[in-house]
Formats: sequence, structure tokens, C-alpha cells
Amino acid sequence: MSRERTLSTQAVLAGDRLALARLLTEVENDTPAGQAALDELYPHSGQAHIVGITGAPGTGKSSLVNQLARALRRSDPPRKVGIIAVDPTSPFTGGAILGDRVRMRDLAGDPGVFIRSMAARGALGGLARTTAAVTRAMDAAGFDLILIETVGAGQSEVDIARLAYTTVVIEAPGLGDDIQAIKAGILEIADILVINKADRPGVENTERALRNMLEYGHPVRRMESSLDHHIQAGPQTLLEGADFWLPPVLKTIAPQEVGIEAVMNAIEQHAAHLQRSGELEERRRLRLQDEVQHLLLDALHTRWLNSGGDGRMEQVLQEVYDRRVSPARAAQLLAAGLQTP
Amino acid sequence: MSRERTLSTQAVLAGDRLALARLLTEVENDTPAGQAALDELYPHSGQAHIVGITGAPGTGKSSLVNQLARALRRSDPPRKVGIIAVDPTSPFTGGAILGDRVRMRDLAGDPGVFIRSMAARGALGGLARTTAAVTRAMDAAGFDLILIETVGAGQSEVDIARLAYTTVVIEAPGLGDDIQAIKAGILEIADILVINKADRPGVENTERALRNMLEYGHPVRRMESSLDHHIQAGPQTLLEGADFWLPPVLKTIAPQEVGIEAVMNAIEQHAAHLQRSGELEERRRLRLQDEVQHLLLDALHTRWLNSGGDGRMEQVLQEVYDRRVSPARAAQLLAAGLQTP
Repeated sequence: MSRERTLSTQAVLAGDRLALARLLTEVENDTPAGQAALDELYPHSGQAHIVGITGAPGTGKSSLVNQLARALRRSDPPRKVGIIAVDPTSPFTGGAILGDRVRMRDLAGDPGVFIRSMAARGALGGLARTTAAVTRAMDAAGFDLILIETVGAGQSEVDIARLAYTTVVIEAPGLGDDIQAIKAGILEIADILVINKADRPGVENTERALRNMLEYGHPVRRMESSLDHHIQAGPQTLLEGADFWLPPVLKTIAPQEVGIEAVMNAIEQHAAHLQRSGELEERRRLRLQDEVQHLLLDALHTRWLNSGGDGRMEQVLQEVYDRRVSPARAAQLLAAGLQTP
Repeated sequence: MSRERTLSTQAVLAGDRLALARLLTEVENDTPAGQAALDELYPHSGQAHIVGITGAPGTGKSSLVNQLARALRRSDPPRKVGIIAVDPTSPFTGGAILGDRVRMRDLAGDPGVFIRSMAARGALGGLARTTAAVTRAMDAAGFDLILIETVGAGQSEVDIARLAYTTVVIEAPGLGDDIQAIKAGILEIADILVINKADRPGVENTERALRNMLEYGHPVRRMESSLDHHIQAGPQTLLEGADFWLPPVLKTIAPQEVGIEAVMNAIEQHAAHLQRSGELEERRRLRLQDEVQHLLLDALHTRWLNSGGDGRMEQVLQEVYDRRVSPARAAQLLAAGLQTP
């Protein structure tokens, strides 16, 4: 049996889990067969709602994602849920995701749920790109919602969160004010805020801190202030006559399934808001444009390599090592080699 | 007065602080004048020892960097110290660095210290690249040590840490076990571990946790185990007959200047180790190679733009938006436009 038949896009479209799993492996390994299949599947993608769920270790993120998937399966009609768990914090070991076994046990055997774990491979920007490709494959395979779960810290998580249309940021009481500070950047991309482990002491402090940060940090809130509106921050508020989204702050206790439905509803309301305001299409286009730009750099490099551009690489690098030619100048010389070999 | 005369590389080499400050602004704004000056200065760089200092908010990192700079100024001979404070956690606001005013007050007026703060500008990998350029300018300006201070979380910090020859990771007691977990990736790049705020309760737990992680996570320690050596983990241990570096775990109380000299000595010992083992030259070459590779992508893209490669961009993007052509295929088509305009 040929490689091409093994990677049947028809089987993926028909919902064959094994075919999807095989495809994702090829995609993660960046093989030509995987790329060809993705090209074929692309016209069938664009239907799923993509949700980024980010939170530091200790916030109970995996447990919440788990319960959310279960709630989505129980809803009417039941939604097909893809879960991508990404761990970019260990770039050198590429370790597995904690809590995966628990998750597997909870959701195992449900054909409407598909879980994939991914770890960083060291390449700059590579993880976000691979995550985008895996998301697209799941999208084409017919999953209604795709939950991308990341650890909430640093640029790589922000890059991954940019793939999502709705971003849920999870906090927990008692992680300290220091910890809040580091997440300022993450908060700015939050569409929905969840305080998980809401039965723990300190939940009021966490809620106050989050509402304060929202007050000062969120663009919509700033706009609200400048319009001189005085709105009591409820779970979700829309300015009269305009379609602004104010991030709700929700409380959950994941293991006891408390507050999960509210999170699910907030995600649906946010999706509806994006659709209504035209922002969904705008986000989609911006993200596709960004992806094409990144892939273009790869393609230009591949073409340069294929044209023998790296023939002078060793010599030029030696001049850089010897401090005769700066790295920037070296790059220009090498790039020019494309036309004057 | 022309732009070129304002950016005098001679003045930078002669130690003119204003000239250096101007150059760094041009470098951060990625101007042609800044790049030309960097090219000119490059042969004068390569002398400084570059130290990455990384730690989460709450570890007292800025205070420690401060005290370290003061200790280096007091040493015989006094070292010229450049400090680059990088904050990649707020990609959208590009906020200022906390603690900067305190720092300025402490070190102000000392011509042997130069401080520069940088915030993320949103570009993928851009911060690491700009930090590399700023480091090089300070290097050429004659600073003996350059301390690059980053918040210890995520891929971007790891990228920045890669610029350094010696990486110091700062912890503090009482940040919780959850927090330790997130730093596994950062620990793997640590050459020196510092527990700051060592007068706080829980310092023994933090030390135990760090030593455990080192035991299981650090490549040299793994090697040690496999060699069946049984070495008591002291502040710094070398295997007999081989030049391995085992990361020491040091304790400091920065505001009281406790333990600062030991950190300074460990940095010097690590620098000597790198020199002796040939690893310094190896790291230098790998980093320069990496830098040239990244700059090459930029240069190829610029050439493509200059040749009118983006003439078909809008049309091709529309086909991507309409799900007729996949992003990867689009990138190939656009790249090929270089030869078939």
C-alpha cells in the first residue's frame, strides 16, 4: 500500500479517527505527504470555532478543559470536540503533558472527542505553526469546537492564543500577586476570564485583582471609560447600541462541575458576538495573512537552498567568526548569492 | 549636522555615553544608520562576557542585578557593566520595567555602568534579535560584562538566554511547587542557580526542590549518574579529570548584600570554565550561525519585496480567504513569483 493511500483525506473527512491520527503525525513531522493532505483538506476547513484556553500550572486548567468537553458533549445537539494540549515550557526535553492520563480516562471511548498533545520542538515559531496545521486538520475532520490548551506564560503562548477566535484565561486563588503581574500580557488577550478552584480561600482577592486589571488593562474597558459610561461590571455587559465585548469573570470548581455550563455559554455568546460584529471574518483573515507571511519566509528559504544559495555559507560564516563581516552584512551577501552565484 | 555624524562609531568606541544611547535607539528602531554603525562596530565586539539573568517576578531579580553590578564595580580591577532589562511579558502594551527607578538611583552617575530597558514590540523573534544587536553595541563600546535581565518564563526568555554565555536562574522561597514546574525548561539552561530572599521561610524546601530538579533534569548531572560517580553537590563541583560544569546552587539576600560576591565569583569561574574547555568559542560560533540564519530570512524577504514579489499578494490572499488555496500552497506560489513575475 502506498504512502498516499495510507494518508487518505477521504477517510479523514469521513471521520475516521485512525486516519486523522496518522495525518496529524505526518503534519507534526512536517512531511510532504502531510502537507499535500493539508492542501487537499483546506477547502473543507473554516467551520470550527477555535478556543484558546490558557492558564498557569496550578490553576486546574486540564481538569476544566476536561469538564468543558464533557459539557459540550452533553449539550443539544452534542458538539464534536477536538482538544490540542500544547506545552511550550520545556523546549529541550519535549516532555509529555501532565494530567493526560486522567483526561484520557474521562473522555476515552467517546468518538465525538479527539485529543492530541504537543510539546515544543525548539524551532522559533515552529510550535505555533504546527499547532495551526493540527487545528486545521481537526477543523476539516468536522470537529465543531477545537480547544487549544496552553500554559499561560510568555510569547509562545500568546502566539498560540492568536490562533483562537475566543481566548479563555484561567486563574486560581492563592497563586500570589507576583504571579498576577506576569500575566498582564495574557490578560490583554482574554475574552473570558475564569477563576477555577473557586472554593479555595482568597477567591475574593483574585476576583478583585482581575477586575482591577481589566479596568486598567483591557482596551474595551478603556473605551468604556472614555465614553464616560458607568457600567457595573457584570458577568457580561454590552454597551447599549454598540457590539462591544466586555470579558466576563466567571467562577468554577471543575472537579465538582460547578460553573462549567456558564463557561460554555460565554464561549457561545462570544462566538455569536464575533459573528454578528463581523470580527470573526476579520480575525480569520488577519490570521491567514499572518500564516501566509510566515510560510512565505520558509518557501523563500527553501528556494534559496535549492538554487545552491548556501554554497558560500561556510566561507561567509568564517568571516563572521573572525569578526571581519557582521552577521547582518553576511546575511545580505548570502541572500544576494541567489542572483549572482 | 548629518545623521551619519550624529551616529559616530568613533565616539561609541571612545566611551561616549550619549553616542551609545543614540546608537541603541537607532538599533531598536531598526534604522539603516543603526545597522551601518553596527556593521562598523562589529570587528570591535566579541570581548564582553554576556550573562543572562532570568527569574520570575517576585524573585527580587532587579535588586540582585543591581547589587551584582555594584559588586563588579567594587572588584579589582573594576569591571564596566552593561545592563539590558528585557520584559517580553507584555507584548501588546510594551510597558516599562518595574524597579527601574530604584536601579537608576542606585547606579546613577557611575560612568562604568550603562542601563537599557527594552520591551517586546510584538514581532516574532524580534525581541531576541534586537537584544542581540544592543548587546553587540555595548560589547563594542567596551563593557566587560553585559547582564541581560529577563522574566523567566516561556520561549522568548529561552531565546534571549541563548544570547548569554553564562545563564543565572533566580528563584525565591514560597513561590509554590506549581511555579517550580513551569520553570523546568529554564532550569535546563541554568549555569548558576541563585535562591534570593534566602531569609524567607521555606528556603530549605526551595533548595531541595532545585537540587532534585537538577538531579533529574540537568544533562551534566545525568552524565554524572551514568558514570556512577557519587559527588556531594557542593556550591560547585568538577568531575575529576574532566572539565564538566555542575550548576552551583547559591543563596543570596540582595538588599543586605548577602551572597552577592559568591554569585560574582561563580560567574567568573563559569567564564573561565567555558574558556578552558573551548566551549566559549563553540557557543559563540553557534550563536553567530543562528543569527546569520535568521537575518538571512529577513534579507531574502527584503529582496523578494524589492523585486515586486508581493504584486500578486492581494489576489493570492483572497484565494486563501475563500478556501480555494491553502496557506502553504499560497506561500509557494508567491515565492515562485520571484522568477516568473
